Amino acid sequence: MARVSQEHLDARRRQIIDGASRCFARNGFHATSMQDILREAGLSAGAVYRYFRSKEELIEAIADEAFSGIRAAFEEAARHTPPPTPDVLLGRVLRRMLIEEVPGGDRQAFARLIVQVWTETLRNERLAATLGEGYAGMRLAWAKLVDAYRAGGLMDADVPADHVARTLIATAQGFIAQQALFGDASVEVIEDGLRALMSMQDPKIS
Amino acid sequence: MARVSQEHLDARRRQIIDGASRCFARNGFHATSMQDILREAGLSAGAVYRYFRSKEELIEAIADEAFSGIRAAFEEAARHTPPPTPDVLLGRVLRRMLIEEVPGGDRQAFARLIVQVWTETLRNERLAATLGEGYAGMRLAWAKLVDAYRAGGLMDADVPADHVARTLIATAQGFIAQQALFGDASVEVIEDGLRALMSMQDPKIS
Repeated sequence: MARVSQEHLDARRRQIIDGASRCFARNGFHATSMQDILREAGLSAGAVYRYFRSKEELIEAIADEAFSGIRAAFEEAARHTPPPTPDVLLGRVLRRMLIEEVPGGDRQAFARLIVQVWTETLRNERLAATLGEGYAGMRLAWAKLVDAYRAGGLMDADVPADHVARTLIATAQGFIAQQALFGDASVEVIEDGLRALMSMQDPKIS
Repeated sequence: MARVSQEHLDARRRQIIDGASRCFARNGFHATSMQDILREAGLSAGAVYRYFRSKEELIEAIADEAFSGIRAAFEEAARHTPPPTPDVLLGRVLRRMLIEEVPGGDRQAFARLIVQVWTETLRNERLAATLGEGYAGMRLAWAKLVDAYRAGGLMDADVPADHVARTLIATAQGFIAQQALFGDASVEVIEDGLRALMSMQDPKIS
């Protein structure tokens, strides 16, 4: 058997993940079989099972990739002093996730897949653990930025940084839910909305 | 056959909806049968089918009730001048939905049911329409409050009121997703997070 290059292996892996993303987005996680994924990717069972043994492994790989993309956007943001404000950063992360690098290429389909994955974690402990780790990483990254906002005099309220982190993650999650449910969520919506909140006078503080 | 009072009819309807909520939350929408709901409510098929002919009608009734509760909280809020700030109002609505009046009595179970309903709307057009109407009503209610914030000098940024409305709804939706996925979402998280955002200095505005 001919030796294959790492480049070839990566391209093959990419082909399988993209095929699986399209299948899951189109028919849901449950209604998709490994057979469907083989057909969509145009590969034999042997070629696919070498990389992924089950639908569960595929959905975990898709989730891992999404979290890596988010982490990269945060790391890039953290290199600036002061760091970009939440409207700018959340807009950047959501554009990257849902427009520029959307797995399978269809934005609403990918948002629907994310909501399906949320439902799936309710009965799949391994997937729940993958999501839990990704979420914990995002919380830490946002909390560091919140500390930087405060150090830079950009944020006054004295509340736990983790609460701010979770609120911003919640806004992104809800945006994905709206995109999945109603299909018309433009990233400007969240950028504008956060900017308006940042322009509010809090009677308890001022 | 004896005539029954409206009070009796309402109590019976309540009993069925509560039983269904517990079943759906425990086993998911798909894995729950009408038989399970009859058993949980302790009623005969005849008694239940008089009110609800299918699981779909039951989940719609549960969604309708949740939206009514949210509408009531908004109507109450709109009676104040100036209206309560987003942190206060969103905290109030989420407390009402997830703590005080949670259908079935279990907060995380109810949050899980909501996420399941989101997934279910992806293939159930009638349920999608029910959710779409409830969402449109919330958007209008929040947009009116945003106009009131601006009229009262509480919000500076000149962005579409609907974008602010959608951002705040997204935050609530994401909070529900976190409660469903991780089970540890306290309402203070969102109140603190919004208050911190409101305390930010937006470099593009100031």
